[in-house]
Amino acid sequence: MEIFKEVEPIRAFLDFKRRNSVNSIGLVPTMGALHKGHLELIKSSKKENDLTIATVYVNPTQFNNPSDLAKYPRTFEQDVALLNQAGCDILFFPSNEVMYSAANPIKIDFGGLDKILEGKFRPGHFSGVGLVVSKLFNIIQPTKAYFGQKDYQQFQVISSLVEQLMFPVKLECVPTVREEDGLAMSSRNLRLAPEMRLKALTLYNSLQLAKNLLLDGIEMTIVREKTINFFEENQVKLEYIELADRKNLISLNFVLDPKDSILLISGYVGEVRLIDNIFLV
Amino acid sequence: MEIFKEVEPIRAFLDFKRRNSVNSIGLVPTMGALHKGHLELIKSSKKENDLTIATVYVNPTQFNNPSDLAKYPRTFEQDVALLNQAGCDILFFPSNEVMYSAANPIKIDFGGLDKILEGKFRPGHFSGVGLVVSKLFNIIQPTKAYFGQKDYQQFQVISSLVEQLMFPVKLECVPTVREEDGLAMSSRNLRLAPEMRLKALTLYNSLQLAKNLLLDGIEMTIVREKTINFFEENQVKLEYIELADRKNLISLNFVLDPKDSILLISGYVGEVRLIDNIFLV
Repeated sequence: MEIFKEVEPIRAFLDFKRRNSVNSIGLVPTMGALHKGHLELIKSSKKENDLTIATVYVNPTQFNNPSDLAKYPRTFEQDVALLNQAGCDILFFPSNEVMYSAANPIKIDFGGLDKILEGKFRPGHFSGVGLVVSKLFNIIQPTKAYFGQKDYQQFQVISSLVEQLMFPVKLECVPTVREEDGLAMSSRNLRLAPEMRLKALTLYNSLQLAKNLLLDGIEMTIVREKTINFFEENQVKLEYIELADRKNLISLNFVLDPKDSILLISGYVGEVRLIDNIFLV
Repeated sequence: MEIFKEVEPIRAFLDFKRRNSVNSIGLVPTMGALHKGHLELIKSSKKENDLTIATVYVNPTQFNNPSDLAKYPRTFEQDVALLNQAGCDILFFPSNEVMYSAANPIKIDFGGLDKILEGKFRPGHFSGVGLVVSKLFNIIQPTKAYFGQKDYQQFQVISSLVEQLMFPVKLECVPTVREEDGLAMSSRNLRLAPEMRLKALTLYNSLQLAKNLLLDGIEMTIVREKTINFFEENQVKLEYIELADRKNLISLNFVLDPKDSILLISGYVGEVRLIDNIFLV
């Protein structure tokens, strides 16, 4: 696997590849601390492209909480080993100096989609995501880019970015990979102490519980109360549980059509903020 | 000249050209009502690129004033004739439906540069400019893009956009073309009634007057007063006259180094808003 840290060398390398019968490039943007979820993205990209590029960059502008940024897990050596093993062709691993030159970075306002759910609890988060993804798209110019369903709202925001700025790239949303007990794979799981690891399952269990209640016709107001109680019993802090339209993420109070619906949840397990979501069918 | 109105056909056409020894593409984005200033951009592009593409699109999101948008001159037949004559290879002439799909378009905040000078009098203007230019860059993927010095702040905002979003495009700022008496060529000049055409010269004459005073060591506070009087005498409404740093457009009160300085002006000649600027050397 080739590793690049600067913009011009990777651009020159990719230009050369494009002129020499590489017709499709798959991009897998990550913040490192790779797990099986990321490797699933690599696998999807390898299946569909001549060349697969992973990026490892902990993007500061998408962190609203400085301590979350400072404590975000960094496991670079292991990431390289995992990417090599997965057959990733290229790794782009830039520094902050390479990625951000301006003292006062551009802010992108998505006009609604970025203010709800995650956006409500992480102001500025999706602006930072939009900015770094724009940069990566313009550096790599991929044919396709792969994102995990765990960050479903992020996928919708990036879809809006691509549609509105007309980036010539196709986006793929890859299903969440879970531990055997159901916990969604997340780099932040590395920060969970052993006694917290069990409590972390409260998110997934709540989603399953909520799904069954909703499919029985129970309204979200009731479901939310039950979820709050369940979180209290487990001593985990619920941030939100929302039933929403899969396309625009507008909140719903009951299921209209299960195949148009998604359940999203967020909470703090100790100091660690986790998110998860499931489709209703 | 080939004319395209939709995104996919022009993308396919350009992909084909790129695969067949077109190595450089020059983009000249315009809002139509073409004049010699635009043709100078075409000429610059033709000199430096294998293929030159003009776009004619009156972008609604960069108009803060609906009446300015409604009255913006549209002279499509003549534009096509002028572009043909100038040897432009391709014209992209999209509709609003092609360019804007979202009900609630993305807003781009440039964090300062977009709030001063034009930005102060045209809130939202540069967000619209950033949005449409991003779209055009992503549709055309040009090697170079050409803009007129008359819209100098626009050039600086687009430079910031390209730097920060890392678009793989080189920008060129082409000197303002003027009528024989000095009036900066502008599509909006078409809206000037004959008696207003003479008054319009107040902007350029004020710039020359101010430049001479500044180079004699007079401060902007004094220069501004004289400009206000000069505008009043000519019955033209001054919006602003500013001395600024050429790189970051920060206001200055006197000239530090003439080669780092620019004078910018804006005013209403009747109902028509005009802008102009000159370097000090």
